[in-house]
Amino acid sequence: MSAVKLEGWRERIRKELDNTVDFWLKYSHDTTHGGFFTCIGRDGKVYDELKYVWLQGRQVWMYCRLYRTMERFHKPEILEAAKAGGAFLRKFARVSGGSGGPWKCAFCLTRDGKALKVQRTVFSECFYIMAMDELSRVTGDKDMQSRSYTNHSRSILSSLEAEQMMEQVIYWVRVDSSSLGRPQLPGEVPTNSMAVPMMLLCLVQQLTEGRGQEAAQKYGDLASWCVQQILQHIQRDGTAILENVSLEGAELPGCQGRLQNPGHALEAGWFLLQVSGEQQDEELQRTAINKFVELPYQDGWDKEHGGLFYFLDVDGHCPTQLEWNMKLWWPHCEALIAFLMAYNQTKKPQLLERFSQVYEYTFSHFPDAKSGEWFGYLTQEGKVALDFKGGPFKGFFHVPRCLYMCERMLDDLLANSD
Amino acid sequence: MSAVKLEGWRERIRKELDNTVDFWLKYSHDTTHGGFFTCIGRDGKVYDELKYVWLQGRQVWMYCRLYRTMERFHKPEILEAAKAGGAFLRKFARVSGGSGGPWKCAFCLTRDGKALKVQRTVFSECFYIMAMDELSRVTGDKDMQSRSYTNHSRSILSSLEAEQMMEQVIYWVRVDSSSLGRPQLPGEVPTNSMAVPMMLLCLVQQLTEGRGQEAAQKYGDLASWCVQQILQHIQRDGTAILENVSLEGAELPGCQGRLQNPGHALEAGWFLLQVSGEQQDEELQRTAINKFVELPYQDGWDKEHGGLFYFLDVDGHCPTQLEWNMKLWWPHCEALIAFLMAYNQTKKPQLLERFSQVYEYTFSHFPDAKSGEWFGYLTQEGKVALDFKGGPFKGFFHVPRCLYMCERMLDDLLANSD
Repeated sequence: MSAVKLEGWRERIRKELDNTVDFWLKYSHDTTHGGFFTCIGRDGKVYDELKYVWLQGRQVWMYCRLYRTMERFHKPEILEAAKAGGAFLRKFARVSGGSGGPWKCAFCLTRDGKALKVQRTVFSECFYIMAMDELSRVTGDKDMQSRSYTNHSRSILSSLEAEQMMEQVIYWVRVDSSSLGRPQLPGEVPTNSMAVPMMLLCLVQQLTEGRGQEAAQKYGDLASWCVQQILQHIQRDGTAILENVSLEGAELPGCQGRLQNPGHALEAGWFLLQVSGEQQDEELQRTAINKFVELPYQDGWDKEHGGLFYFLDVDGHCPTQLEWNMKLWWPHCEALIAFLMAYNQTKKPQLLERFSQVYEYTFSHFPDAKSGEWFGYLTQEGKVALDFKGGPFKGFFHVPRCLYMCERMLDDLLANSD
Repeated sequence: MSAVKLEGWRERIRKELDNTVDFWLKYSHDTTHGGFFTCIGRDGKVYDELKYVWLQGRQVWMYCRLYRTMERFHKPEILEAAKAGGAFLRKFARVSGGSGGPWKCAFCLTRDGKALKVQRTVFSECFYIMAMDELSRVTGDKDMQSRSYTNHSRSILSSLEAEQMMEQVIYWVRVDSSSLGRPQLPGEVPTNSMAVPMMLLCLVQQLTEGRGQEAAQKYGDLASWCVQQILQHIQRDGTAILENVSLEGAELPGCQGRLQNPGHALEAGWFLLQVSGEQQDEELQRTAINKFVELPYQDGWDKEHGGLFYFLDVDGHCPTQLEWNMKLWWPHCEALIAFLMAYNQTKKPQLLERFSQVYEYTFSHFPDAKSGEWFGYLTQEGKVALDFKGGPFKGFFHVPRCLYMCERMLDDLLANSD
């Protein structure tokens, strides 16, 4: 593939990223109550004022990451937005007096920060951790013009808060989840759902990045556990990734056991590639590429209409999820990152070919040429089925994270191709 | 409309009902553990052994109702299936030792009856009541050949059980829901969701049918409350039915407040028509037809591709439910019942015209000519999107209830047209 091609992709991706950042800066900030609107219609109009905690945390994280690592986003308005979002989260996300203990976060808040819904899972807390840790990196940033004692102590505070909440999440996941409030039922089979070790691995990478040996050691055992838990999802003699397995890594019965989520597997793929890159673990790299990147793409790509299915059943039964055959934006984001990272690490041309294929589908279907940002939900045939830009599960996260990571990887590739 | 047309519909409907009953008799019975399989693939194969309590209760109810009221289904195998299903429910549905008290039912059970999931709502209990009450009517049936002391006492038992559980449900809905286990959150606005008064009105009709003045009196206040709660959903100066309103009957903010569910409104419509019929309340009849039958049809019918949308937003925003534009079987079932009942009560030709229109779409899209029964989930364009016959929410209920009620109404119409 020629440098011209790489350059073309980078240009488009850079423009899309600028455009996406502009969209959310323009439409999502609640200057009255703080925090971010996330239910934003096609043209930027807020159609619901609820504030979803996952998305609040992710937006803080994304703003901080862009501010900290990309020069053109190192702008006061992005920093201020991130800090305002962090303050809103810190003030309102945690559910006081609930049964989950002092660290339990709500899933959804009213515009003015009152808890509306609490999930009996760990994900709101995880995105809170991501936000607080990345925020602490930014507010402790030596380049920051307004650095002061207050900022510095705030940075220590949010870093500490992230670590303490992390301890709670680890306790829920690995020791005892009973305080999450879900009753133990006699028919339940303890399950290793891919989302949990993926999320924790992502947090380990967040909390250890650039912090040297001590941090790496602190979370080393957890990281190994996450990798091992993710690898348990390779099933059927290595021919399929299944979304839910038993704690011992055996296939579970029924729909739950046969469920495949190609986008999720691809995301796990690049999480594993990051680990294999850091640890220079070639076997893990091979497994990540063959099983978590190639396989889900082979199984999940719609040969008739293009694009990745949302859910599949490994035995070919029809999934029971009504949206199984829809094409969602985020699996395509994960696929782009996964193939470009796999190529970046191996330089195998067929991986760049795959990237190109996913790129073609993605950029010809998801971006909205009229009003900016991306549509999130297409029919199997590729028609826009839901036209909003933000909703309860689509915020300022998958699109900009993908564009940001791909732009940086293309920078690397182009720098090294000279 | 000519009697020939009515006769043609009745023939088709009768055949579909026979065929549907055959399908479930053949494929859904678990002769090993009792109860019914409900996850049944296109060709009858069980693809998941989980047993959903809503669907267990509904199937018992439907079998009993057919056995009790239609001569051609007054067959031992249907009675035995209903009794076996009832025994399974009675043995396993109630969650012992849970926080919901002695009447709390599970939402989902393993094949051998272990609780797997409990919802913090009242619907499993409601379908349990429907099953037990209808079963008590059948096992106390004077025509039953095998009637014996045991059967008789069993009938009293299940009738009593239905009434006791009904007391619990009424307490949860009207007095205090805290033992359902949902924490009160500061951002929550107490909501009148259409499903609750509809379900309770349905139960009142079940528990009082044919039982004279005493039963009617016992539940008279509840029935009035349900009707009044349903009527609160008429919003926007009478131009829209909204799915969720405040307890005082005011519109709620955001997506939740703007949500429309045309199939649900149509179902509420024929529930109200039943009440107006019994009470000879012409004003209620007019309201039911104009607001709960005509209006949801006008708003919910897809002018481009035909069929009823699943969800809409009254202001024309895109709903956030990914399946909003799909065509589901059950709203069409409810529409058929609603229009035929409205016509039966009023004899206004345009109501039969509407029935005809819904009939055309329904019978040309949902029945599976190859393997029997109906598909449940179509794309907006009318293509089968999920090809199973039974799933977590589709069992032996909406299709046979619709066919059964329409057949009986057509019987009436044809008998009176002579």
